[in-house]
Amino acid sequence: MTTGTVPARGSKVLISADDLRTLTAGIFEARGVAAGDAAAMADALVWANLRDVDSHGVSRVPRYLELFDKGLSVPDAAVTVERPRAAVAIVDAHAAPGPVAMNRGADEAVAGARDCGIGWASVRGTVHTGSIGYYTSRVAAAGMASVAVVAGMPNMGYEGARGAAVATSPLSVAVPAGRHELVLLDMATSVIALGRIAEFKAAGRQLPPGAAVTADGEPTTDPALASLPLPVGGAKGSGMSLVFELLASGLVANPIVPGYHAGSKEGRRHRQNGFILAVDVSAFLPLEDFTATVDATVDAIKALPPSAEATEVLVPGERGRRCEADRRRTGVPLGPKAWRELTSLAEALGVPVPDLLQG
Amino acid sequence: MTTGTVPARGSKVLISADDLRTLTAGIFEARGVAAGDAAAMADALVWANLRDVDSHGVSRVPRYLELFDKGLSVPDAAVTVERPRAAVAIVDAHAAPGPVAMNRGADEAVAGARDCGIGWASVRGTVHTGSIGYYTSRVAAAGMASVAVVAGMPNMGYEGARGAAVATSPLSVAVPAGRHELVLLDMATSVIALGRIAEFKAAGRQLPPGAAVTADGEPTTDPALASLPLPVGGAKGSGMSLVFELLASGLVANPIVPGYHAGSKEGRRHRQNGFILAVDVSAFLPLEDFTATVDATVDAIKALPPSAEATEVLVPGERGRRCEADRRRTGVPLGPKAWRELTSLAEALGVPVPDLLQG
Repeated sequence: MTTGTVPARGSKVLISADDLRTLTAGIFEARGVAAGDAAAMADALVWANLRDVDSHGVSRVPRYLELFDKGLSVPDAAVTVERPRAAVAIVDAHAAPGPVAMNRGADEAVAGARDCGIGWASVRGTVHTGSIGYYTSRVAAAGMASVAVVAGMPNMGYEGARGAAVATSPLSVAVPAGRHELVLLDMATSVIALGRIAEFKAAGRQLPPGAAVTADGEPTTDPALASLPLPVGGAKGSGMSLVFELLASGLVANPIVPGYHAGSKEGRRHRQNGFILAVDVSAFLPLEDFTATVDATVDAIKALPPSAEATEVLVPGERGRRCEADRRRTGVPLGPKAWRELTSLAEALGVPVPDLLQG
Repeated sequence: MTTGTVPARGSKVLISADDLRTLTAGIFEARGVAAGDAAAMADALVWANLRDVDSHGVSRVPRYLELFDKGLSVPDAAVTVERPRAAVAIVDAHAAPGPVAMNRGADEAVAGARDCGIGWASVRGTVHTGSIGYYTSRVAAAGMASVAVVAGMPNMGYEGARGAAVATSPLSVAVPAGRHELVLLDMATSVIALGRIAEFKAAGRQLPPGAAVTADGEPTTDPALASLPLPVGGAKGSGMSLVFELLASGLVANPIVPGYHAGSKEGRRHRQNGFILAVDVSAFLPLEDFTATVDATVDAIKALPPSAEATEVLVPGERGRRCEADRRRTGVPLGPKAWRELTSLAEALGVPVPDLLQG
């Protein structure tokens, strides 16, 4: 969010969002995912592409298939739900893919909030949840505010320690608005997301200072040498990541950090846990009164004088939403590698490859 | 948290925590706060002093009395509680001081969580809530995890904008442990808290780069010129602060940001809103299983090799807790100005001034 736009390099193809969704869902379905779940996975991935979060988009399709191959994810896992208390659901993914498990979590959080004013769903033992703003947006569409967190394998530094210590665990907060659209915060606890480092490398650009260190723990701005993103604000980002792990993984008895550092193969097996909180605005005040406040607050922020470096003041989610509006109209650009991988998987699985808009 | 220890300058006095609490409570009681509420306020402030968060400690006593004088806070306000849904409480402070209102919020959140698995309390229209880790710790003492946020007057920059835009709204997360004590994150959404800038100035030290700007919006490391702390991680910190304002203030129909920027006197009147979430661990798994996971996770983090700059890896809350243990034994150091202000208020109000341990 803080690192600006990375210009594209190499020739991208352009595909309509609908076609990309159909292609992606077709690949998952051909690999044993039920039609509805395959469509849900495709929708979550294409949503990320539409919003310029390409690192969490369809470039992840091969990775899901690899997780299926290795038995780390189960395409037709039966997600189970317990509701031990009225406002709490425990969604056990049984290794179902992230979007399948997290969508269920979002729905259960909404159900709890309808009943009790707020609802919490813990999601246990899923894989790659992707761009978690997708799930908080789903809750917001029900007229609720939402907070979500995901914890995964350590891939980030920790203030005062050497090496990968905790995960870049993301936090998303979605707040429904009225005239304006949703205010949608969706941030990693690192200065820069791992996927963004790869994008800087592909674009031949230097990283901002303080974003990452080399394998030897030396600060670097060279994306080719960067092996570990650093936590945002030092102890703040690493502290957030640690408490997110305790809440996301500890409450479902599926801790990740201790097993990872014990170094066992089982401890380093890819898995993720998360939680989603839904807050039913109508328990507090009429929804339209709340969204009027959100609109007035967004107006006040957007009316602030821009700083010397900025031309406009943006609110969380605004840049992504503009991109989404553009790409829904003009198509989704995909890098040549992502497109090649998708089409070769489709061909191998007998899934029809749609025509491109360009490329 | 990230900025190291500021060495003391000038001669400090040393007072026992019990005596400081009695003195502080005596002053509040003499100004019309009920005995129990005065004791609660004193406990919250002295807790901050014990943990080396002096900016949120008893140095704030004159400020509370000033708020009473101006009618911005009401010493004997009757806090009211509505419970519109089983898991949700709305605590209206009616301008009661922060600790009185926030303690009530913490208790209501716990009550909701006992009933429904999780509980949420919104706190409306209070003043200066202080160090909010105090309230999440209170929830954790009931065997629950807790998240709290407070929103107040804009006093921080916003990514892409000039001037004070949003508040340094703090976030606290408390997670109960077993062998270890509580993991307690308590952070401002700014790089550096406002009170820390004053401490750097008093200590004659330079600020870390990127922490603050001058009144003209120029970056500075001179604490005397620093007028505005910057958000941690640019768009991340300012985005967190904005969504915290929407949740804390929007849900109780007491928005702060739009009125502040409209510039009216009423809009710039000091007030704060907050929320506290309690998560009843026993709804998910036996508390001792959870705290064993927390212990194992803390052990794994503390066993990491320290970085070149560090001698030890710490978890959130550890530094403050060590300081608290020391100061409970050796006494609380207070700067000469804070002590002078307290004693002159006590003398004017006929409150006995205790003997010092030293000074």
